[in-house]
Amino acid sequence: MYTLYYSPGSASMLVHLLLLEIGAPHELRRVDLDAGAQRDPAYLRLNPGGVVPTLIVDGAPRWETAALALLLAERHPEANLAPPPGSPARADYLQWMLYLANSLQPAFRWWFYPEAEGVAAEAVLAAARRRIEAAWDRLDAHLGAAGPYLLGAEVGAPDLYATMLMRWSRKMPRPATEWPHLAALAGRVKARPSWRRLYTIEGLTEWA
Amino acid sequence: MYTLYYSPGSASMLVHLLLLEIGAPHELRRVDLDAGAQRDPAYLRLNPGGVVPTLIVDGAPRWETAALALLLAERHPEANLAPPPGSPARADYLQWMLYLANSLQPAFRWWFYPEAEGVAAEAVLAAARRRIEAAWDRLDAHLGAAGPYLLGAEVGAPDLYATMLMRWSRKMPRPATEWPHLAALAGRVKARPSWRRLYTIEGLTEWA
Repeated sequence: MYTLYYSPGSASMLVHLLLLEIGAPHELRRVDLDAGAQRDPAYLRLNPGGVVPTLIVDGAPRWETAALALLLAERHPEANLAPPPGSPARADYLQWMLYLANSLQPAFRWWFYPEAEGVAAEAVLAAARRRIEAAWDRLDAHLGAAGPYLLGAEVGAPDLYATMLMRWSRKMPRPATEWPHLAALAGRVKARPSWRRLYTIEGLTEWA
Repeated sequence: MYTLYYSPGSASMLVHLLLLEIGAPHELRRVDLDAGAQRDPAYLRLNPGGVVPTLIVDGAPRWETAALALLLAERHPEANLAPPPGSPARADYLQWMLYLANSLQPAFRWWFYPEAEGVAAEAVLAAARRRIEAAWDRLDAHLGAAGPYLLGAEVGAPDLYATMLMRWSRKMPRPATEWPHLAALAGRVKARPSWRRLYTIEGLTEWA
């Protein structure tokens, strides 16, 4: 049994999607970010960074979105969300998960919270946009050469991760879906039952 | 047999350290970053991002420093650089590896290349320093509570990663070693034979 502290449409979406894909029993606890619930002392004891997601695993609070994804995929190998250790695709899997985690996802923090850097917001937005679009270029080229999924023929955790991040770009000047192979990937992921169930449970409507 | 494309003291240092810790046969190929060798077409075919490290694994080029660390630790369980899948410490391991990869390491990119963001360099440096020092606060507090290593009693890949990043701070206004538990961790890692051998092989002298 897992407990996920989440906020609709936030980075917790990846962990929620994976729990649904796996079919693992879990409870949800919504963290009201607009009300500042992520800074409540009780929540900070679970997650000292004051962010979502937090996942309670075997009674202990765990965080870092991509780490939770790697952990869930590894604890539930029967869900086939990651190539098994020792398989040729394993290096690809780790590489794309880390690329999404340390190149693409942090750029969205700039895009959504430019003033948090203490730097002129317009300049931060421009830098974020440049970096995000460069990532779409790279991911789209990879999908065109080796897709339709990031690891080839079968869907995996990196595709769910990439699609969550694509969703975050939906109001940008050039949303990810302007790249054709990315649009095709998003279409495939959005057609999955896990995506539809998550939309219902989290009460999401945009980019459905 | 692995082949590592590296540059002394760069992010490739983590992969090189791990190869030495593991005792895995490997060849080294130096990439002369000052001469722009990372932008040679031949290198870009191996590593489209034009960065080091690249690790040739089973004949295929792989990249992303933290992904390579996860991969090597998993391919060589006998080296005990990571808790095994299913063990209680596994979530901690993944969490700290990802924290270093997506919160701390990207901030150093700002610190070393502030002009690359197209934003006033002074402001980028200030933001980078704030973020890096916040990470030292957090890592030091964790080590004080649960150290001496990031996963507790035994050294692992996260400690080697953190020590490489601490080394990068050596000329900052407040180097990581001003935090006492971090200084103690650095001392332990720097006393390891792998660190000393790497210094000799890469020709490093600073922060020995």
